[in-house]
Amino acid sequence: MWGGRFASGPSSVMEAINTSVHIDQRMAEEDIAGSLAHAAMLSACGIISSADHEQIAAGLKAVREDIRADRFEWKAALEDVHMNIEAALREKIGAAAGRLHTARSRNDQVATDFRLWLRSACDRAIAGLRAYQQGLVAQADAHADWVMPGFTHLQTAQPVSLGHHLLCWVEAAERDIGRFEDTRKRLNESPLGAAALAGTAFAIDRDATAQALGFDRPMANSLDAVSSRDFALEALSAATITAVNLSRFAEEIVLWSSRRFGFARLSDAYSTGSSIMPQKRNPDAAELVRAKPGRIAGALQGLILVCKGLPLAYSKDLQEDKALVFTAFDDLDLALAAMAGMAGDLSFDRDALEQAAGEAYSDATDLADWLVRELELPFRDAHHVSGSIVKMAEGRGLPLAGLALEDMQTIEPRIRADVFDVLSARASMESRTSYGGTSPVRVREQVALWTERLNAEQTS
Amino acid sequence: MWGGRFASGPSSVMEAINTSVHIDQRMAEEDIAGSLAHAAMLSACGIISSADHEQIAAGLKAVREDIRADRFEWKAALEDVHMNIEAALREKIGAAAGRLHTARSRNDQVATDFRLWLRSACDRAIAGLRAYQQGLVAQADAHADWVMPGFTHLQTAQPVSLGHHLLCWVEAAERDIGRFEDTRKRLNESPLGAAALAGTAFAIDRDATAQALGFDRPMANSLDAVSSRDFALEALSAATITAVNLSRFAEEIVLWSSRRFGFARLSDAYSTGSSIMPQKRNPDAAELVRAKPGRIAGALQGLILVCKGLPLAYSKDLQEDKALVFTAFDDLDLALAAMAGMAGDLSFDRDALEQAAGEAYSDATDLADWLVRELELPFRDAHHVSGSIVKMAEGRGLPLAGLALEDMQTIEPRIRADVFDVLSARASMESRTSYGGTSPVRVREQVALWTERLNAEQTS
Amino acid sequence: MWGGRFASGPSSVMEAINTSVHIDQRMAEEDIAGSLAHAAMLSACGIISSADHEQIAAGLKAVREDIRADRFEWKAALEDVHMNIEAALREKIGAAAGRLHTARSRNDQVATDFRLWLRSACDRAIAGLRAYQQGLVAQADAHADWVMPGFTHLQTAQPVSLGHHLLCWVEAAERDIGRFEDTRKRLNESPLGAAALAGTAFAIDRDATAQALGFDRPMANSLDAVSSRDFALEALSAATITAVNLSRFAEEIVLWSSRRFGFARLSDAYSTGSSIMPQKRNPDAAELVRAKPGRIAGALQGLILVCKGLPLAYSKDLQEDKALVFTAFDDLDLALAAMAGMAGDLSFDRDALEQAAGEAYSDATDLADWLVRELELPFRDAHHVSGSIVKMAEGRGLPLAGLALEDMQTIEPRIRADVFDVLSARASMESRTSYGGTSPVRVREQVALWTERLNAEQTS
Amino acid sequence: MWGGRFASGPSSVMEAINTSVHIDQRMAEEDIAGSLAHAAMLSACGIISSADHEQIAAGLKAVREDIRADRFEWKAALEDVHMNIEAALREKIGAAAGRLHTARSRNDQVATDFRLWLRSACDRAIAGLRAYQQGLVAQADAHADWVMPGFTHLQTAQPVSLGHHLLCWVEAAERDIGRFEDTRKRLNESPLGAAALAGTAFAIDRDATAQALGFDRPMANSLDAVSSRDFALEALSAATITAVNLSRFAEEIVLWSSRRFGFARLSDAYSTGSSIMPQKRNPDAAELVRAKPGRIAGALQGLILVCKGLPLAYSKDLQEDKALVFTAFDDLDLALAAMAGMAGDLSFDRDALEQAAGEAYSDATDLADWLVRELELPFRDAHHVSGSIVKMAEGRGLPLAGLALEDMQTIEPRIRADVFDVLSARASMESRTSYGGTSPVRVREQVALWTERLNAEQTS
Repeated sequence: MWGGRFASGPSSVMEAINTSVHIDQRMAEEDIAGSLAHAAMLSACGIISSADHEQIAAGLKAVREDIRADRFEWKAALEDVHMNIEAALREKIGAAAGRLHTARSRNDQVATDFRLWLRSACDRAIAGLRAYQQGLVAQADAHADWVMPGFTHLQTAQPVSLGHHLLCWVEAAERDIGRFEDTRKRLNESPLGAAALAGTAFAIDRDATAQALGFDRPMANSLDAVSSRDFALEALSAATITAVNLSRFAEEIVLWSSRRFGFARLSDAYSTGSSIMPQKRNPDAAELVRAKPGRIAGALQGLILVCKGLPLAYSKDLQEDKALVFTAFDDLDLALAAMAGMAGDLSFDRDALEQAAGEAYSDATDLADWLVRELELPFRDAHHVSGSIVKMAEGRGLPLAGLALEDMQTIEPRIRADVFDVLSARASMESRTSYGGTSPVRVREQVALWTERLNAEQTS
Repeated sequence: MWGGRFASGPSSVMEAINTSVHIDQRMAEEDIAGSLAHAAMLSACGIISSADHEQIAAGLKAVREDIRADRFEWKAALEDVHMNIEAALREKIGAAAGRLHTARSRNDQVATDFRLWLRSACDRAIAGLRAYQQGLVAQADAHADWVMPGFTHLQTAQPVSLGHHLLCWVEAAERDIGRFEDTRKRLNESPLGAAALAGTAFAIDRDATAQALGFDRPMANSLDAVSSRDFALEALSAATITAVNLSRFAEEIVLWSSRRFGFARLSDAYSTGSSIMPQKRNPDAAELVRAKPGRIAGALQGLILVCKGLPLAYSKDLQEDKALVFTAFDDLDLALAAMAGMAGDLSFDRDALEQAAGEAYSDATDLADWLVRELELPFRDAHHVSGSIVKMAEGRGLPLAGLALEDMQTIEPRIRADVFDVLSARASMESRTSYGGTSPVRVREQVALWTERLNAEQTS
Repeated sequence: MWGGRFASGPSSVMEAINTSVHIDQRMAEEDIAGSLAHAAMLSACGIISSADHEQIAAGLKAVREDIRADRFEWKAALEDVHMNIEAALREKIGAAAGRLHTARSRNDQVATDFRLWLRSACDRAIAGLRAYQQGLVAQADAHADWVMPGFTHLQTAQPVSLGHHLLCWVEAAERDIGRFEDTRKRLNESPLGAAALAGTAFAIDRDATAQALGFDRPMANSLDAVSSRDFALEALSAATITAVNLSRFAEEIVLWSSRRFGFARLSDAYSTGSSIMPQKRNPDAAELVRAKPGRIAGALQGLILVCKGLPLAYSKDLQEDKALVFTAFDDLDLALAAMAGMAGDLSFDRDALEQAAGEAYSDATDLADWLVRELELPFRDAHHVSGSIVKMAEGRGLPLAGLALEDMQTIEPRIRADVFDVLSARASMESRTSYGGTSPVRVREQVALWTERLNAEQTS
Repeated sequence: MWGGRFASGPSSVMEAINTSVHIDQRMAEEDIAGSLAHAAMLSACGIISSADHEQIAAGLKAVREDIRADRFEWKAALEDVHMNIEAALREKIGAAAGRLHTARSRNDQVATDFRLWLRSACDRAIAGLRAYQQGLVAQADAHADWVMPGFTHLQTAQPVSLGHHLLCWVEAAERDIGRFEDTRKRLNESPLGAAALAGTAFAIDRDATAQALGFDRPMANSLDAVSSRDFALEALSAATITAVNLSRFAEEIVLWSSRRFGFARLSDAYSTGSSIMPQKRNPDAAELVRAKPGRIAGALQGLILVCKGLPLAYSKDLQEDKALVFTAFDDLDLALAAMAGMAGDLSFDRDALEQAAGEAYSDATDLADWLVRELELPFRDAHHVSGSIVKMAEGRGLPLAGLALEDMQTIEPRIRADVFDVLSARASMESRTSYGGTSPVRVREQVALWTERLNAEQTS
């Protein structure tokens, strides 16, 4: 394969470690698209004849048909997707195939293919996140005024709206989308024509191939074009952060659907059973999404390790990038589909949520705030008084609203009967009307905004 | 500290693991800025009196003076920067200090401080990258037409311009800057007023505090405001990718300044000696930059681990974010300063570079391209012919240009004497005039563009 | 500092990135111990005079006193702990100090110090794990027959003994100890005398210094001695795996002490409150332990990145090892102390545990097993029958034992009344008497074994 | 599949994320071995009849034949390797197949399979490391007295023996082997019989299955048996550290075979060419080994992320362990085979090595040591004198031995002519006879020891 210089072929272990076609064949569509654009440009620039170009284009399309129809035989000895396709082209059209590789190298070719693949992967991730947001916003709309316990440290903190809680993940998903958009924007430049590392003496037109492949522009430095992989690191970072955000809601689904919480239930469509315990309904999909940061962040760290300390220009180490990226985005695609599915599938137990929201003195802050507002206590003092009243109530096994006014007055004599107006989970939730707060009136505004925004996305 | 509810204090090990003031005191400026904005807003909204506000503002400024003058006593028992400052404020102004914490919580407070800190850190990173680019562009300008070997697989590949090589790192730095700009844009939203997790019933004005602190807007969901840390993950990703890019050029500095390469030399200002070997001049700074992805990517992985699977809202786990971020950005700041310094400090050996550029048949591609251009061989065939000629030359211990025309013609009879015009390192470099290519004419265009761009940045 | 060759000093940024004394001063004791052993050996071998040796030894001890009394002034310009101590020695004893560095280099010196430090760190980790086991075994003893729900997928699975659950973490800790023991064994070799990288021409006695410092033997290859860091990677791996195991029990403490579980309570000594919510009692220490894999595994990844692809022998990159290792072991020490404390501190709610153990058809497997044992159904068929009976009971809102025999018989006519004997959480737990099973009789055997083992450890 | 309780099946995305049979089918041999042992034990204990046992055993063996002959149809809808094999068994033998799952669960089954798989993987890694050591020791033997430059900071430091250098990697591999041995020892315990999580009420004999499967003992805690994965973390740690060690020698192969070093050459069997540059011979295999820590350490970090914070007992997250481990060990196997191959394949250039060894004042330490030994200068002063002489020689473009005695005496008047005896690379190497030093006499001793040790391993 290496032309005239080599006397003998690779050892079997060399071939085994070196071949990548079992992995990079996933870029066959991108590789052929790149070759079609390259051949058209070579012809337009007079570097190859239009007859050669026509043969090459027809041949590449025939190879593509073979691949799509799954009748293409991939050969490990031909090392990678590029050489497999070029060899197949030669079988189809003969010597003209040998003109395709003029003024390019596998170094710029693989960089082009990989950027095209990742561009699609970013688009898929964005679409997956949008579907997930749709599911969440619909649920938030339906549950805008359902009260549930808000937790900090997993301890009951303050009552919140279930809709408000779900919208939190819509916000996170929006930032995830923003990161994929920025990644896509930054990687959408064409390496094609950088050749091995130094550019070429052929009078090629890199703008033409860039435009044909939907790139914003050709890359300005040929060494950079063939050896940079920070675009893949950025894509993996975006995927990792998304996966971490998803894992957090997945953890909540696991908690909520446990018997001890009893807040929500996944249908049979998102539950599995046990091979030994007949009663089990397990939230496997949520657990798997919770675990997905493992392989995705592992891939990120893997590629960081690969790239660290590599001198210019292309080194074979970079071949490891694709297995890492492909696996990570496969996992992300699955995780997003599963989360969109579960976001729509979840059914909630209104009574359980409301009861839990009222537990554990979740209205103690409301008491403190009342003391500030009505008695003009400094907040720190109000906090202390309120804490003492909680202690009294807990000692008696009562909620705050279960104490007699006189009992409270032993701690703060100025407390009045209208304090009881703020002492309930629902009152607490409804009172938090500050911008971004959990009051249903605020939540409905946000639902309306998100609905509009997502509709606009869909029609754009 | 926890008001009325607690009967006894923490165990000593609890205090030791829980305290964070030795770390988060680095956010004292941000914390006080946030408190000043919050107090002004509380007063403007009529939630505290203007007299209280004046006292609080004066007190906070006095505390700030103490901190700046390094006469502030940080106390571990007060747990964190927030409580230390509030306690100091109380010492200065008495009971009014207790009104500052109205309608906020440490949860939104720390999120605000941390975003402010990271916003500055992004700005510092961008400035550091700009200085590094300046150093590189100046060197590229001075060495636009110096020829050196371009490597792939660390094997001599094709001759390139030293200026071209250096500009590759300018391109990478530009993408690094883009990532910090995107990170900064996405994190520049105000959590203040989200309170513990649910917003507040006080009629606060979150736009006012957001504006006072330079945020683009208040965050739209209170749960998101206190529990999201994807902004820190994104900042660490940007720092990691930058560090990886830097590590690659650092590796090249180590290689180039080795005796075996002999391409470049760091002055005494960037070299160190040995405690045992009197002759040594070591490129320690380059090695340390090469190593910096360690702690920075380690911090990224650390924060991924911390955040993974955390349910809403704030959990104490999140306290681990700051030590990770602070260390990573300290390392990044040092690495950028060292790289900017070395980029300017490096002196190159023109003869060594030019000699190495001509070694190892670096003009073999030029021969193949000549065969394509002049004899219309398909590139694949030209590659084979050229490889055979290399084999012949190597067998005789000669460079390509050292072979007689007749010898070449035994392999390809149509080769003509003008083939020798392309067989030199300098000719090879100069011929690669495609956009993005290594020809000095292209390199000078890029240097001009970068110079203009960097000047524009400086004056903007 | 570098002797005669350097004309000018380092730039300020070079000094800033290069200095390590703020970090490696933690190895001052180890450094002095190594120097004492080295000087004694040099004297015994006749390489320095015994008068010089006496001066050096006295001087080093005086320096050590200064350091212990915190009156030693560390100087960044002297770069590291080694040069700081040598310079101080010279101030104390004059020219003889210059003889100490004969036949050694900072390369073998730092490797020696670092191994000594890590050896102690392993010993500390083992002691911390033993204390944690003690706390767990005592609790397991006290709760050997308390029944609680065993979970899989966080769904109620089968009733287990609380003691059995706690012993699971004793087993995990035992493997953690084993890993630290193996690490310690493997790292306990002396690099001292490897000098810069090649050994020395002085007739030194490496066995003598190895023995004096408690090493098992001198290392057999001088290049290996100065450049290997796999011992530190192994120590960080052991620390990481331990931290992951701890994080799992920490997560359970967070869950158990939540209102929704209500299984356990941490005392005020291990709880904290909220700056805004007066009722809160947060399990901060458990959350922080849950988060500790972040920095510890981050340090592991960091050192992997540092070491990857480094050629022999010593490179400055390796200087980054210490900050990573020191931070990780500080975190581990804290985490172990906190877990030992919490393991002893936890108090459990017997009623809540027992009630939860009986929920959610946790006895469905017992029903299936009864069908296998008594009716000789294949387990798969028994599983199906049992699942159908669960479905019937759930539809009626009853536990299995709440169904009438006749109802069960509509599904499997051969079911007899004695099936009710197996349908309770306690009966279920007590029945699982297989080796390693959860029956209290088995748990008590294990408690006895562990008690004996831990007592033996303490007295050994 | 889940028996009587489920009304409807999983959604397609649920099935897609949940299925693992495309991955875990690699454990088919282990799964069947475990089932055979389990069935034999059930029969011996009288839990199933011997007739059923015979049917089951024959059926399992028939299934195994189908799998080995690659005529087994794996079905994603049956989720995993366990259910696929059980379903196939049922097709072969009917109802008796339903008795096999008595007294076990997939939880203990998969833990058993996975430990068996990893035990083999450890054995393979050890064998691969031994082959690598063999290759290195043979080369060390052949090159025990070849002199080459020893580097620190990639700067020429002191001359060393090439054999000594190669033995360094033998030492590292020995520690790698030790880690795999310790891992294997610690994981070789049987989870089988732990059932779902709590053990079983059937009177099983766990010692019998443990022994049949070659485990050292049954695990003592059923919760631990089904939910611990620290054994896999430890195996991945061992693999990662090995990969890091290999990456360091791989980097050296890349450097040595570069034109600038020219120390060594890989044959065509371990080289590849370029699709564009006809002259290229690239050390692809070495580069790929250098990159392997990427995926392997990425897998380690991935599994750390998966396990962190998981409560007892089995959670579905743990299913992610296998893809991570399988990929990592595939990569390790390849890397070890490639390194063993390259270790044997490398040919060295004696002249290039010796010439490089004498460059760059590599004998400056020898001069300093001479000053200590002969003139009794303190080493620090000798270092300074020697540095000044280097500076003088460098200024004149001479090696140390090229200076006239009188010139040296201008710096230190007592220097005598016999100083020139120590001023050569070979003399320097030969003089370092301290234990572990680079003198060929020491290297040959080590080669003899390793030869004996490796022979002993092979015959044991």
